[in-house]
Amino acid sequence: MPRLVMKFGGTSVADLEHIKNAASKVKREVENGFEVIVIVSAMSGKTNELIAWVDETSAMVDAREYDAIVSSGENVTAGLMALSLQEMGVPARSWQGWQVPLKTTSAHGAARIEEIPSENLDAKFRQGMQVAVVAGFQGIGADGRITTLGRGGSDTTAVAFAAAMKAERCDIYTDVDGVYTTDPRIEKNARKLDKISYEEMLELASLGAKVLQTRSVELAMRFKVRLRVLSSFETATDNSGTLVCDEEEIMENNVVSGVTYSRDEAKMTLVSVADRPGIAAAIFMALAEAGVNVDMIVQNISEEGRTDMTFSCPTDHVARAQAAVDTAKSSGDINFHGLIADMDVCKISVVGIGMRSHAGVAAKMFEVLSREGVNIKIITTSEIKVSVLVDRKYMELSVQALHDAFELGKTT
Amino acid sequence: MPRLVMKFGGTSVADLEHIKNAASKVKREVENGFEVIVIVSAMSGKTNELIAWVDETSAMVDAREYDAIVSSGENVTAGLMALSLQEMGVPARSWQGWQVPLKTTSAHGAARIEEIPSENLDAKFRQGMQVAVVAGFQGIGADGRITTLGRGGSDTTAVAFAAAMKAERCDIYTDVDGVYTTDPRIEKNARKLDKISYEEMLELASLGAKVLQTRSVELAMRFKVRLRVLSSFETATDNSGTLVCDEEEIMENNVVSGVTYSRDEAKMTLVSVADRPGIAAAIFMALAEAGVNVDMIVQNISEEGRTDMTFSCPTDHVARAQAAVDTAKSSGDINFHGLIADMDVCKISVVGIGMRSHAGVAAKMFEVLSREGVNIKIITTSEIKVSVLVDRKYMELSVQALHDAFELGKTT
Repeated sequence: MPRLVMKFGGTSVADLEHIKNAASKVKREVENGFEVIVIVSAMSGKTNELIAWVDETSAMVDAREYDAIVSSGENVTAGLMALSLQEMGVPARSWQGWQVPLKTTSAHGAARIEEIPSENLDAKFRQGMQVAVVAGFQGIGADGRITTLGRGGSDTTAVAFAAAMKAERCDIYTDVDGVYTTDPRIEKNARKLDKISYEEMLELASLGAKVLQTRSVELAMRFKVRLRVLSSFETATDNSGTLVCDEEEIMENNVVSGVTYSRDEAKMTLVSVADRPGIAAAIFMALAEAGVNVDMIVQNISEEGRTDMTFSCPTDHVARAQAAVDTAKSSGDINFHGLIADMDVCKISVVGIGMRSHAGVAAKMFEVLSREGVNIKIITTSEIKVSVLVDRKYMELSVQALHDAFELGKTT
Repeated sequence: MPRLVMKFGGTSVADLEHIKNAASKVKREVENGFEVIVIVSAMSGKTNELIAWVDETSAMVDAREYDAIVSSGENVTAGLMALSLQEMGVPARSWQGWQVPLKTTSAHGAARIEEIPSENLDAKFRQGMQVAVVAGFQGIGADGRITTLGRGGSDTTAVAFAAAMKAERCDIYTDVDGVYTTDPRIEKNARKLDKISYEEMLELASLGAKVLQTRSVELAMRFKVRLRVLSSFETATDNSGTLVCDEEEIMENNVVSGVTYSRDEAKMTLVSVADRPGIAAAIFMALAEAGVNVDMIVQNISEEGRTDMTFSCPTDHVARAQAAVDTAKSSGDINFHGLIADMDVCKISVVGIGMRSHAGVAAKMFEVLSREGVNIKIITTSEIKVSVLVDRKYMELSVQALHDAFELGKTT
């Protein structure tokens, strides 16, 4: 019998009424002929309540105990979902991570999945269980202790089950109805994409489209799991949501699939750095050690032995970055005249797998922005995206102009 | 190293502050040189919240899912207690039932403990763990599913661990400071007992002293576990609480140890039953099948082929009892003229292991009640107790008169 993984996040299982609603979606897929594996998150607020108790109890939290405590939220939802399904006449059974068992590394609080043996679930499906409800976000380490998977853990659990149980698809139910060409709050012509490739989704996810965690998309790409993002507040049809899949499954790729933005960027300029071989390494080593996530980097042409070094980082890393370069300066590792932090910037990116075969996307992007009078401060490019840093006041204008210029509002 | 089991019930771990207070008691015992196994209940209100969700979700609750959901309350407390101890510098680790593993029957919701292998905990103690914090009330069945032990499950968990881990003693921390000769709210001279035998405690527990669940006392008696009941709101000393132990450990037994009462009794009389061989069996079989807990039974002398049959049962079983005998009457199994239910009664008992060797306790009891003008409606006796059913209005008077007559207020 074909298998389907369905994952319901926190807002989709916020309370008993929502759990029931989610259960009715599961029932429909069982009636469609699927054996279903449901992955659930904790009910709204429950994980936060548990984390608050942990924080109040202990200053130096032992990650093993953190995991044992925090994982209980998902266990409760799993049991309630199984009961809801049974109440609807669907044979269902809940599974906690250790019961599957979902084997992980022992990196408590941020464990990685190592293996999901399918025997136990297979046996239960053969015995007539139609739905396995699995508590997301958790597993068991080699030491027999409960582990949790960290941020995005439930999405990752869902994709891993889809791979291990050879599911036809992994449906991620969330509070948005799919992936859009850009943020509909900024551009009214933003259009929901029916399909998008893993590579594009990765760029969109890491650039700030908060639909799917990067980690789960990476896993889906590695194991070729067809991933669908759809809304838990609508009745699903075959065309619901956005399918994230292999690019070969997408008949005709757009040159550009989407325009994204990130508000939380800062531009940092080290003014008049004494230039010498290895100076860039010295600067960025110091920043890396301080835990600063450096994104874009530009070095001006060196004049008379001095140069300006510009980079971008998240706004909440600025203080850390300043402290790191000051320390490096006083220890004599680097020499510069001053540091300018510009917080009034943002990053705009265009993403599309078609760029690989179509030259000129970057040129067109610069031309559009130039025509609108938007000055570009830094540029970075990858195989399937072009990003620029611009003044924040031009953010909406830039997104709208690029969305329009690349004709993203039109249905293909 | 000597071992100690410490059990903290719901009110003793009501919130983070209480958990911390309990942890400091555990720390003191570690400093006294014990390896400690702590058994915890769920935080106040948590189990009720979970049960309410279960009830709201499903009409015919699947006991496997009930157990998976409800057991999560104890898991949270266990983790928080371990963190509290670590924060105080005490190496502690939490254990869920399946991790120990605490093996039970598969009677979900009311499982019985079958085995507690000590290897895992022994190994951890050897590696420097000073405290094992175990989630009470739960275990794992042969099918690999979580089970719960039903009413009094956490006390039972504690006693079972004390037996399996060969603990010197099992300390049950609760909201009372011990077992009293009678209810101090009724008799101001009620005195805390320093020691009491298992047998006496069993009679007291099943007669309504709500200190310990019958089941845990039975288990303690079977495995000769020394059980101490004490208050979690006081600082424990060697003489705190009441020690429940083998009678041989009690130097001089009192003839009578305590006077108990139960308010929730009803007296039922089947009037003019057509007497024939097997009639009592027919009546009480019908009541048993209807789930009526019959306690005391009296049959009057038969006259002209008819007799009155009187029994007592909990007040909330009265309606069920009435329905059961009416059904038996209409099906022709029994024949009687009427049923009188008297709800205004109560049961008074005197309990004492010394009765075995001292005749006349029953006679003295009847004499005292008679002197006070209290009419006795039913009498039952066992080896170590005498119980009578009397009008409820005489309850306080009876308890006080008996407590005084048997000199229970005096220290031995």
